[in-house]
Amino acid sequence: MAHVITDGANENFRLLKDRLATISDVYSAASVLAWDRQTYMPEGGVRGRAEQLASLARLAHEMLVSPETGELLDGAGEREPGSDDAALLRLARREHGRASRLPARLVAETSRATALAEAVWIHARDKSDWSLFAPHMERVLSLKREEAGYLDGEHPYDTMLDRFYPGSSTKRLRGMFDELKAGIVPLVREVSAEVGEDRTAPLRGEFDEVGQEAFGRDVISSFGYDWSRGRQDRAVHPFCINFGGPGDVRITTRFDPELLSVALFATCHEAGHALYEQGVDPSYTRTPLAGGVSMGVHESQSRLWENLVARSRPFWSHFHPRLRDAFPAVIDDVEALYRAVNAVRPSEIRTEADELTYDLHILLRFELEVALFEEDLAVADLPEAWNAKMEEYVGIVPANDALGVLQDTHWAIGYFGYFPAYTVGNVLSVQLFEAAVERRPEILPEMESGEFGTLLEWLRENVHRHGKKYEPDDLIERAAGRPPDTAPYLHYLGTKFGELYGLK
Amino acid sequence: MAHVITDGANENFRLLKDRLATISDVYSAASVLAWDRQTYMPEGGVRGRAEQLASLARLAHEMLVSPETGELLDGAGEREPGSDDAALLRLARREHGRASRLPARLVAETSRATALAEAVWIHARDKSDWSLFAPHMERVLSLKREEAGYLDGEHPYDTMLDRFYPGSSTKRLRGMFDELKAGIVPLVREVSAEVGEDRTAPLRGEFDEVGQEAFGRDVISSFGYDWSRGRQDRAVHPFCINFGGPGDVRITTRFDPELLSVALFATCHEAGHALYEQGVDPSYTRTPLAGGVSMGVHESQSRLWENLVARSRPFWSHFHPRLRDAFPAVIDDVEALYRAVNAVRPSEIRTEADELTYDLHILLRFELEVALFEEDLAVADLPEAWNAKMEEYVGIVPANDALGVLQDTHWAIGYFGYFPAYTVGNVLSVQLFEAAVERRPEILPEMESGEFGTLLEWLRENVHRHGKKYEPDDLIERAAGRPPDTAPYLHYLGTKFGELYGLK
Repeated sequence: MAHVITDGANENFRLLKDRLATISDVYSAASVLAWDRQTYMPEGGVRGRAEQLASLARLAHEMLVSPETGELLDGAGEREPGSDDAALLRLARREHGRASRLPARLVAETSRATALAEAVWIHARDKSDWSLFAPHMERVLSLKREEAGYLDGEHPYDTMLDRFYPGSSTKRLRGMFDELKAGIVPLVREVSAEVGEDRTAPLRGEFDEVGQEAFGRDVISSFGYDWSRGRQDRAVHPFCINFGGPGDVRITTRFDPELLSVALFATCHEAGHALYEQGVDPSYTRTPLAGGVSMGVHESQSRLWENLVARSRPFWSHFHPRLRDAFPAVIDDVEALYRAVNAVRPSEIRTEADELTYDLHILLRFELEVALFEEDLAVADLPEAWNAKMEEYVGIVPANDALGVLQDTHWAIGYFGYFPAYTVGNVLSVQLFEAAVERRPEILPEMESGEFGTLLEWLRENVHRHGKKYEPDDLIERAAGRPPDTAPYLHYLGTKFGELYGLK
Repeated sequence: MAHVITDGANENFRLLKDRLATISDVYSAASVLAWDRQTYMPEGGVRGRAEQLASLARLAHEMLVSPETGELLDGAGEREPGSDDAALLRLARREHGRASRLPARLVAETSRATALAEAVWIHARDKSDWSLFAPHMERVLSLKREEAGYLDGEHPYDTMLDRFYPGSSTKRLRGMFDELKAGIVPLVREVSAEVGEDRTAPLRGEFDEVGQEAFGRDVISSFGYDWSRGRQDRAVHPFCINFGGPGDVRITTRFDPELLSVALFATCHEAGHALYEQGVDPSYTRTPLAGGVSMGVHESQSRLWENLVARSRPFWSHFHPRLRDAFPAVIDDVEALYRAVNAVRPSEIRTEADELTYDLHILLRFELEVALFEEDLAVADLPEAWNAKMEEYVGIVPANDALGVLQDTHWAIGYFGYFPAYTVGNVLSVQLFEAAVERRPEILPEMESGEFGTLLEWLRENVHRHGKKYEPDDLIERAAGRPPDTAPYLHYLGTKFGELYGLK
C-alpha cells in the first residue's frame, strides 16, 4: 500500500530538502576550512580561522534548530518505509532533535576552542610539552562535558559515542573490549615469548619522500582511489575529508624517511576511508544520507584496506617487486617483508602499532575517556595515567609525552568517543572481508595480481553506496549476514599470528 | 564637542559589530573556498563547490539585508566624525543599502554561475575554444545586467565600477582614458619607430620552475612580504586573496619555463596587493574597514611594486647578480637586462604587456564592457570585436582566442568593471611613489641595496593601515597631496621610455 502523501507534505518535504542542502553546504565549507588549516594555512591564520569556523558552526546550528526547520520536519508527512526519503527524514529528525538540545553559543564555542586547541596541540607535540596543551584540553573537555549534560545518555560518555556510532553505548563497548582483552592479551603473551630478532629491519633504511609518495599513489590507484575526485597532501596527523558528496574526497599522509611503513599504511588507511566516501550514491549529495554511516563502519573500511589487504601475502606477492623497483635496497625475500609488515612489537605510537597490539592502544584511550567523563580522572593526571596503562597493556612506557599522551589529534578537536571506532572497525573489517571473499572467491587470486576491482565492487554494492541510509548494525547484518561479532576477528588474529610466530 | 551617544545606541552598535563580524566570517570562508578552487580542488569538486559558494553568498546576503541588521544600523546613532566607528557605520550602511536592492536569489545565482563559468573558462582557454565559454559568458553577463537594473546608476555600467572603485563612473573614466590615449598613443608611435632588434632576448631561455620560484620568493621577501601570514601557490590566473584580516594573505603565481618575466612580475604584482592587505590595521579585522579601499588603490600597490620597483634600475643593480647566481646563463650586462624588462613590444597578453602598451589593453576591455552594458555588443560578437580593437590599439591580432578574448578570468567570475582599476592603479602608483620618494629621498639609494623598508613604511603609514576608512579619492589626496591625476603618470612614461628609446 502506498502511503498517502498530501501536496502540502510534498511541498514541505521539498523545502526541507532545500534547507538541509544549504546546511550541508555550510558544513562542507567548514570542512574545506578545516582541511586548509591542517595542510596549508600559515601560522597567522590561526585566530581568524577559529572565528570563521565558529561562525559557520553557529549558522549551521541555527538553521538546523530554527522553528522553520522544525515546522518543515513536522509537516513533511511519512514516506514509504524503506525508501531513501524515509531514511532522510529519520536522520534529519534525529539530527534536529540532538542539535535542538544544544545552545548555539556552546556549538560556536566548541568550534572556536577546538580550532585553537588543534593549533596548540601541533606545537605542544613538536616540543613534547604537555603543559602547553593542558589548558586547551581542559577547555575542550569542559565544553564536551557540558554538551553531554544537555544530551540524554545512560552514561555521560554514551552521548560522545553516539555521535560516532549511533546505537553504541559505554556498556556495549565494555562488553566488546572484555571479549577482546580475553582473546588478545594471552595471544600477545604467547607471541612475545616467541619474538626473537627485530623483524622490522627490512622496513628501515633511507627512503626519499618522492619515491615513497609515488609508490603509495600506485598502491591506492590500484585499490580504485579516483584522483579526479580527490587529492593527497601532507599533514601532521593523516586524515580523510569530504566536502558534502563523492565528488571531492581528499586524503593526507605523513612520511618517515627512515621507515617505509609509516606513510604506506597511513596512505592505505586513509584511502580506505576515501573509497567509502567516493562510493556513496551521488544522489545523496547535500542530504543527510551523504557520507559514511558511522565512524565504526568507516574504520572498518580503512582498516580493511590497511590490514586485510596491504598486510596480506597476496598483496605483497604483487607489490614486492614494485617496491624494489622504487627502492632497490629493499630485501629480496618477500616472506621476510611480509613478516616485517606484520611484526608484533610493542610500540608507543598507535598509528604505527601492529594489528595484535593495536586494540590495546584503543582500550587504554577508551578507559581514560570514560574516566574523564565520569570525573574520575583530572586532566592534570592524564600523562601519568597514560603511561601507567601503557606499561600495563603494552609493556612499555613512552619516552616522552609526544610519544605518549600528546600523540593523537582527537582530543584537541573534541573527538571524545571516536577512538573505540578503530576497534569496532577492526572487528567489522574481518566480518566484511570474509563475507566478500566467501561470496566472491576470485578476490584473493585477483589480489595476487594487484587487482582489487571485485573487492571494491562488493564493498560498493554492500556498504559504500548506501551512505547513511541504514543504521550501522543493520548495514553490517545485511552485508556480512550477521550482526557485529568479535569472534571472527579473534579467530583471524589467532590464525594469522599463530602461523607467523609458530604458535601451537 | 563629543557626540552624545545613548546606552541603547552603544548596545546596538556592539550588536551590529557582532553581526558584521559573522558576515565577514562567511565572506572569508567563501574566499577560502575560492582559493582552493583555483589552486588545489580536483575536477570532481566543481559542481559541489559552486553550490557551497552559492549558499554562503546567499546566507551572507540574507544576514546583511535582514530587518535585524537594518534596525541595528538605524539604532546605532552617529559616531564622532572622523573616527573609525563613524567610517565603519558609513560603510556598513552603504553595503546594506546596496545589498538590500538585490534579491537573495540573484546573489546566489550569480555566485553559482560564476563558480561554474570559471571552471569552464579554464577548460575553454586550454582548448582555445570560445564556443565552450560563450553560454557561460551570456549567463554571467545577464545576471550582472540584472544586478545593474536593481542598482542606481546614471549609466548601467556605473554600478559595476562602483563596486571596485566607490565614487567612480563611466563618465569620469572616459575622461581619464581620453587623457591617457592622447598621451600614450603618440608615444607608442614614436617608440615603435625606434624599435630595432627584440630587446627581450635576455629574458628567454630555459629556467626551471624551482629556481624561478626561489628567486621570486627572495625578491618579495625583501619587499617585506610576511610568510608567516601568507603563502604562495600556483594558479592558472595569478591572484591575491585574504581571509578577513592581515593574518592570512595569500598569493598565487604561474611559470613560463622559457620566459623569466612571466612569474617574476606576476609574483611582484601579487605581492604588492598582499603587502597592502598585510598592512591594514589589525583592529579592523572582521569589520567593514578591513581590506584595501578600492581595486583602483589596490592596483596602485601591485603596479607600484611591479613597475616602479621591479622594473627600475636601482632594483636591478641589486638583483641582477642574484639572478645570475640562480641562472648563470643570464646576460652579464645589467643595462641590457633593464632594457629587456622594459622592452616595448605589442603583445597579445595583458599581464605580459610592457608599461607603455598596458593601458591600451585596458582601454579595449573598458570599451567592450561599456558596449556590453549598453547592449551595443552581443556576446557572440566579442571575439571579433576584441580582435578588431587589438589591431587598432596594439597593432596585432591574437593568433587564437586563448591569446585573445579568453585570456582573462574576470568575466568568468563576474568582475565586469574591474579592468579600469588597473589603469587607475597605474596612474595612482606614480603619484604615490613620487610622493614617497619626495618625502623620504633615501628610498632610491636603499632600493639599490635591495632594501625596501622605508618605502614599505611610508606606504603602510599613508595607505595600507587605513584599510577602507577613507574614501579612495580622500586617501590619495591625504597621501599624495593631490587628487588622482594622469599628468604625473604621463610624465613618468614619457621620461622613462623617452630615455630608453632615445626619443627627442
